[in-house]
Amino acid sequence: MAVSIELTKEYGYVVLVLVAYAFLNFWMSFQVAKARRKYKVFYPTMYAIESENKDAKLFNCIQQRGHQNSLEVMPLFFAMLLLGGLRHPAVTAVLGALCTVARFFYFTGYATGDPRNRMKIGVRLSSLAGVGLIGCTASFGISLLVRETA
Amino acid sequence: MAVSIELTKEYGYVVLVLVAYAFLNFWMSFQVAKARRKYKVFYPTMYAIESENKDAKLFNCIQQRGHQNSLEVMPLFFAMLLLGGLRHPAVTAVLGALCTVARFFYFTGYATGDPRNRMKIGVRLSSLAGVGLIGCTASFGISLLVRETA
Amino acid sequence: MAVSIELTKEYGYVVLVLVAYAFLNFWMSFQVAKARRKYKVFYPTMYAIESENKDAKLFNCIQQRGHQNSLEVMPLFFAMLLLGGLRHPAVTAVLGALCTVARFFYFTGYATGDPRNRMKIGVRLSSLAGVGLIGCTASFGISLLVRETA
Repeated sequence: MAVSIELTKEYGYVVLVLVAYAFLNFWMSFQVAKARRKYKVFYPTMYAIESENKDAKLFNCIQQRGHQNSLEVMPLFFAMLLLGGLRHPAVTAVLGALCTVARFFYFTGYATGDPRNRMKIGVRLSSLAGVGLIGCTASFGISLLVRETA
Repeated sequence: MAVSIELTKEYGYVVLVLVAYAFLNFWMSFQVAKARRKYKVFYPTMYAIESENKDAKLFNCIQQRGHQNSLEVMPLFFAMLLLGGLRHPAVTAVLGALCTVARFFYFTGYATGDPRNRMKIGVRLSSLAGVGLIGCTASFGISLLVRETA
Repeated sequence: MAVSIELTKEYGYVVLVLVAYAFLNFWMSFQVAKARRKYKVFYPTMYAIESENKDAKLFNCIQQRGHQNSLEVMPLFFAMLLLGGLRHPAVTAVLGALCTVARFFYFTGYATGDPRNRMKIGVRLSSLAGVGLIGCTASFGISLLVRETA
């Protein structure tokens, strides 16, 4: 039996969480651009080499891994947000908002230059929320499979 | 009140813009593969080191940042295309097509070897279109929240 | 004429294939973390430099390109999975499952340290399945455009 996709009001929050994450990413890329000018790491160089630039680790660590890691998780985060939200829109929106906030702390924690600081608020919050989001997505998939035929 | 997702005919153009962007990316990865053979930069090396390869900057600049940057924006671009298109399919399809064309100019501009050329047609067009796409996506999210109950 | 999105039971498999790919990626990132400890390549370094680390090629090759390449194709793979599945859910689920299995072989093949091993099962299977997925996605887009008005 086919299921019509119906979007409840709460799905609007899911979409806006995605838009918020987009703005966070733009903010992070501005921070990276500022760091490029400050530490003289020019395109196309993605990661500065320590033997060539005394601020290499700071640039790589503070900004690039904070930003690049955020880009790496984006496809997964968006997919789970949009799919999990089809069945659990309120929960998904809250978990997605937590991930976005955690991502901010992850970035600023990385910005101290010490990669271990990223293990604090940012990663723990994201991991917990991420597990929740996978759960919502799997729940949505399973709900389609077990739906009884009328 | 729940909203059924209904796809108008124009959403077909949104989907085909996504397919076009996919083909553009395959074309770019072929260009990168050709450059790897030409400049002798072999896997798993992602970016050539200037002290080891006289064509390093050309390879890194011309191809990799053109291709890699395109991959970086893909999750965001696709999400906004597909969500914004649910409410503004014609506008979204046009903006998405502009982004795809701009991405082509960005890649070939980068291919001259001078990263500043990428600031021209490619980036300005993409930025304007991107703002439009975020607007369509936010509009879609807000429309779900403010929909009056019958 | 607008088309309501209706998800058949088989779309549940499409969603679960996406969840499986997510788990595969988490597994790969654990392998990368293990390799970081084993070969002493610490954050924020993404790719080890051969002149500084005798295991550089092994780390870069075995793990990072296996994992990073998987992350690079993820936006495209997810988009085609979810869109193609709206029209061809059973075919899309099977092709997506094949891509996930192929990605596993790609990663373990890369793990031997010789990048050419990745050209075997992993890439051939993925390429064939990928062509199929693009086909499903284009088919879905075209079906929206040619749908006759009632």
